[in-house]
Amino acid sequence: MYNVAVCGASGYTGSELLRLLTNHPFVKVTAVTSEKSAGGYITDMFPFLCHYEGLKYEPLVKEDLHKKADIFFMALPHGASQEAVAYFHKKGKKVLDLSADYRLKNPDVYEKWYGVKHNYVDYLKDAVYGLPELYRKDIALTDLVAVPGCYPTASLLGLYPALYYNLIEKDNIIIDAKSGTSGAGRKADYALSFSETFGSFRAYSVASHRHTPEIEQILSFISSSDIKVSFTPHLLPVSRGILCTIYATLKEKKSVAELVDTYIVAYGNEPFVRVLKKGRLPDIKRVGLTNYCDIALSVDERTNRLIIITAIDNLMKGASGQAVQNMNIMLSLDETTALKSVPIFP
Amino acid sequence: MYNVAVCGASGYTGSELLRLLTNHPFVKVTAVTSEKSAGGYITDMFPFLCHYEGLKYEPLVKEDLHKKADIFFMALPHGASQEAVAYFHKKGKKVLDLSADYRLKNPDVYEKWYGVKHNYVDYLKDAVYGLPELYRKDIALTDLVAVPGCYPTASLLGLYPALYYNLIEKDNIIIDAKSGTSGAGRKADYALSFSETFGSFRAYSVASHRHTPEIEQILSFISSSDIKVSFTPHLLPVSRGILCTIYATLKEKKSVAELVDTYIVAYGNEPFVRVLKKGRLPDIKRVGLTNYCDIALSVDERTNRLIIITAIDNLMKGASGQAVQNMNIMLSLDETTALKSVPIFP
Amino acid sequence: MYNVAVCGASGYTGSELLRLLTNHPFVKVTAVTSEKSAGGYITDMFPFLCHYEGLKYEPLVKEDLHKKADIFFMALPHGASQEAVAYFHKKGKKVLDLSADYRLKNPDVYEKWYGVKHNYVDYLKDAVYGLPELYRKDIALTDLVAVPGCYPTASLLGLYPALYYNLIEKDNIIIDAKSGTSGAGRKADYALSFSETFGSFRAYSVASHRHTPEIEQILSFISSSDIKVSFTPHLLPVSRGILCTIYATLKEKKSVAELVDTYIVAYGNEPFVRVLKKGRLPDIKRVGLTNYCDIALSVDERTNRLIIITAIDNLMKGASGQAVQNMNIMLSLDETTALKSVPIFP
Amino acid sequence: MYNVAVCGASGYTGSELLRLLTNHPFVKVTAVTSEKSAGGYITDMFPFLCHYEGLKYEPLVKEDLHKKADIFFMALPHGASQEAVAYFHKKGKKVLDLSADYRLKNPDVYEKWYGVKHNYVDYLKDAVYGLPELYRKDIALTDLVAVPGCYPTASLLGLYPALYYNLIEKDNIIIDAKSGTSGAGRKADYALSFSETFGSFRAYSVASHRHTPEIEQILSFISSSDIKVSFTPHLLPVSRGILCTIYATLKEKKSVAELVDTYIVAYGNEPFVRVLKKGRLPDIKRVGLTNYCDIALSVDERTNRLIIITAIDNLMKGASGQAVQNMNIMLSLDETTALKSVPIFP
Repeated sequence: MYNVAVCGASGYTGSELLRLLTNHPFVKVTAVTSEKSAGGYITDMFPFLCHYEGLKYEPLVKEDLHKKADIFFMALPHGASQEAVAYFHKKGKKVLDLSADYRLKNPDVYEKWYGVKHNYVDYLKDAVYGLPELYRKDIALTDLVAVPGCYPTASLLGLYPALYYNLIEKDNIIIDAKSGTSGAGRKADYALSFSETFGSFRAYSVASHRHTPEIEQILSFISSSDIKVSFTPHLLPVSRGILCTIYATLKEKKSVAELVDTYIVAYGNEPFVRVLKKGRLPDIKRVGLTNYCDIALSVDERTNRLIIITAIDNLMKGASGQAVQNMNIMLSLDETTALKSVPIFP
Repeated sequence: MYNVAVCGASGYTGSELLRLLTNHPFVKVTAVTSEKSAGGYITDMFPFLCHYEGLKYEPLVKEDLHKKADIFFMALPHGASQEAVAYFHKKGKKVLDLSADYRLKNPDVYEKWYGVKHNYVDYLKDAVYGLPELYRKDIALTDLVAVPGCYPTASLLGLYPALYYNLIEKDNIIIDAKSGTSGAGRKADYALSFSETFGSFRAYSVASHRHTPEIEQILSFISSSDIKVSFTPHLLPVSRGILCTIYATLKEKKSVAELVDTYIVAYGNEPFVRVLKKGRLPDIKRVGLTNYCDIALSVDERTNRLIIITAIDNLMKGASGQAVQNMNIMLSLDETTALKSVPIFP
Repeated sequence: MYNVAVCGASGYTGSELLRLLTNHPFVKVTAVTSEKSAGGYITDMFPFLCHYEGLKYEPLVKEDLHKKADIFFMALPHGASQEAVAYFHKKGKKVLDLSADYRLKNPDVYEKWYGVKHNYVDYLKDAVYGLPELYRKDIALTDLVAVPGCYPTASLLGLYPALYYNLIEKDNIIIDAKSGTSGAGRKADYALSFSETFGSFRAYSVASHRHTPEIEQILSFISSSDIKVSFTPHLLPVSRGILCTIYATLKEKKSVAELVDTYIVAYGNEPFVRVLKKGRLPDIKRVGLTNYCDIALSVDERTNRLIIITAIDNLMKGASGQAVQNMNIMLSLDETTALKSVPIFP
Repeated sequence: MYNVAVCGASGYTGSELLRLLTNHPFVKVTAVTSEKSAGGYITDMFPFLCHYEGLKYEPLVKEDLHKKADIFFMALPHGASQEAVAYFHKKGKKVLDLSADYRLKNPDVYEKWYGVKHNYVDYLKDAVYGLPELYRKDIALTDLVAVPGCYPTASLLGLYPALYYNLIEKDNIIIDAKSGTSGAGRKADYALSFSETFGSFRAYSVASHRHTPEIEQILSFISSSDIKVSFTPHLLPVSRGILCTIYATLKEKKSVAELVDTYIVAYGNEPFVRVLKKGRLPDIKRVGLTNYCDIALSVDERTNRLIIITAIDNLMKGASGQAVQNMNIMLSLDETTALKSVPIFP
């Protein structure tokens, strides 16, 4: 039995982690932190987490906290994670950081997009990017995982085989992404209020979203070249789900059947990637509350374009589910432990 | 052309008033107030109100403001309205108060339910309760209208004929009410965020909602007796709309047809009350964005109960639409001016 | 390992049963029926049920089917269930009927409300009403369970302790119920289309819903008297969830704390009933995808009324979850097998 | 006063036309057709259209119908419109066809995408494509208008200035479009049921939607070259609204400010096009129930891409509102007659 701390447990990724860990047979949550709610019971904040009756929020005092757990999930805001991650890492703990702080290898790129300096550059090289489908072996060997962002997960799983097998041009990739509101985090905000979001649909952070360099970094690694993408996020009037519609130019004519075969080979026995048969298209509702990423491929023969559509649950495969998957790999457990869930209908 | 000021124009009832007044041929908005947004353009807060290009929010300085308008719509929070209403009233202005401050005739009842003392008790007797279907003549003669609350409007229009014609027992009235989220006002609040309200439905303020004494006051007037009701509001996952399901015991057996006839007589040529034919039931969607109140009557013969169902748009007939209707009456204009709108489908 | 057949597996209660049974360690689904889809793969109808890859729908030929399973879940329309239930029952199978066909003990009442004659009156007395909180012992001993309707489940769990402990008057019970659209079943229907239901809220079947006699039958058993209720269902714009607001007159003054204590005693260790602390109110979102029934009690002291609010997931505790709970009891298994799920947030 | 017939008045575009025409001072609806509902009152189908009390549906018998009106709105399914349009056109009537039957100039393209032969090729050349921003003068002179499709309207208004002023490459245009469910028409269909669409988001008709050739035809006219686009529609869980995110490669570096200026010049005094200031982005909710098309421009400098985002109400500017706008032009009326509506908030 491993002891687990969840730092930043008053937001959606934190509460989702706690929900998943109630079903994990080898893990015990021994500490949860929240600066604002310190001293309060977690069941007062989240009555549905009655599994954790009696557990209180504490402030993140790292000198105390490191004694309480073997594994640290860090669900803090970007910037706030840097120092504590470094501390627990130095103490030899297993750390899974759900913030962006250890995702970007280049500290200048981090500073440019996130507006804060990175003070623990030495540890950046230790951090493994926690996308199991690409980096499973590295994850198994590391103690520090940077859990990917929600949009990057849906984008990278869609593009990886196409780039890896050199099927598409590298200079014309467009990712049109749509996310449910929980992706914006737990916020009291007019623009995210029910009254103003009901019946609404809009783009935001056009050509300027912080997930752009994260996507580009991994695509560039895959293709051994410098890739730039256009990435446009939109806000869907649903609580959960991301759907990415990805456009790229095919190098050579390919049928959908050929492409599906390539993707099926690429993803082999991946437990959480489902390449859909020709004619089926992903729906965020079909992956809701699961750790699956559904992928469909279409070819627009008239323009020689490959259209890749992916769907995930942003709080599951896009955040907390993927974090648990990473932990399972780090602990040499069955990777699907606590993550087997049948999609809901209707 | 009348000059109009809207005090408290950064919330939903204020913006709805401004939306409606763009279509009013005899009215010009000359001032809008907001303490927080003072100095800013209203089109920066509400881009859709482009009709008011150039108009700036000002703080509510009543000594200046009273010179700027003939008619004052007060869309301030409860308690905050008392003083300014009294001031403009004393200055001889026409005042329409959308807060609860001048609705309750008994200042002790007001203090008990709203938790603040009423400091302008002398003016309470001047205020007319702005439900045109009951008090049209008084509205036409007054300069001070207390615009009814949203739940009271839907409840009273449903119950008035039944009580007036002595069809129901007075001691067993239950109002089960459901409202869209805009009824809670413009708030940045976790509990009203899209993520947490999507797929949700719940009751709130059970047996303790402040609209209870307002409903009881008018029902008691109608029936010349002391009426107490049970009133339970619920929060619907839609932005607009109130539906009330009202239960009462019939004094004598009546058919639905007879009851419908009585209601049709009671409401005669009312422009905004629609008594539905037997077999049709109200839907908040059918009255959305209109000033209508739809009413249906059913009889549960097995229990001898009358079931009255009413639907309104909480921001229209439940607040700003009704306020404009009152103003039209006060100004001897066609009562439906700026309020003719065909329901939307789908 | 028990072999299970699901008859009528192309609707929502059927698909929900199949979803739940994928997690059941002692059960294997060996047959699924659908007249319309006979010959087709279940994964073509419901791609999310990939657990059942290879399983085909067959028509309900009872002479063949009875050999294929030990346990029969009947998710057929009302009326269509009578004969097949009788047949499998006579063959000694364990039968759980999710239709209304074996719920009402009086065949005349059945015929009056459902418009069809009951041709298997002799078996009605064998059928146990599958509400475990009331009839657990009988369920454990029977082979034929009539699984309660969704509205009756939410209504009866709310009223049972109040009636059993004689706290309320018997002649003034009102149930104001609200259900998500999946309660209407899987239908292609204008009135249930997304375009026309989005932003909508309405009552239906006022004073005439078929669940009324079912509720009254059990309340009458509990109180040993002839109880009549007023029951009004409404359609909520969500896919899942039922919330019932129940009004009754208290015989004697009681505090909420006393009433909560009584309910806690009444429900003792029930695994799926949660009596909420004073001040907390149920939300359909808090019980979504779980088998819980949440119950809150309020007292309107001004009118001496008890207000009971209950919430369930209509497809879980309101249908398929409860059916599985019954099966577990019939098989002497842990009653919560395949039914432990932590509520979702947000 | 002109007499108007609406052929195919049992669907959403037909009912929206009737809603708009209630506010039109120069028009009287004298006939409505529906094959299925012939003989029934329109107020039985659509109670909200009480303005048309007494008007009955009739079958489309063109020999009778042509005598009843001066202007014919044809809201029939694609293919079903051909013959009646030709007939009324030949009779000298003003015809506005909301189907696709007279939009494509090349009958072979029509046959390829719509699967039916065009039997009235001679009239195709008479038909003017009813996008007033491009073809106002032709519309004013013609008697036969092919009202544009919803997606083409949102796409073309977004792309027209960029192509007309030669700002973008012609071979790399991608339109990622999202529409509310009413765009699918009034259908009783599982996939469009509330239960199955709630919480859902998905693409459909990828690389194969019938609006593709319509978009390409007009873009090719504008740019005097053969343009092919990739067009991907998605289904949003809202009833109304289309948002298009359009990607194109800039020929030369341009700032957003320069591009906004160009668009403002291009659209001059257009009453229904609003080019948004830098930093503001369209939202379908901001154009809901209006005839506006909102347009925002962004530049992704890193990839030299222009990102154009447009929003319309699919039943208004995307269908019936635009049809009325065309009629106003044909009749030399103020183009905004019956189309002035302030957006709704919230």
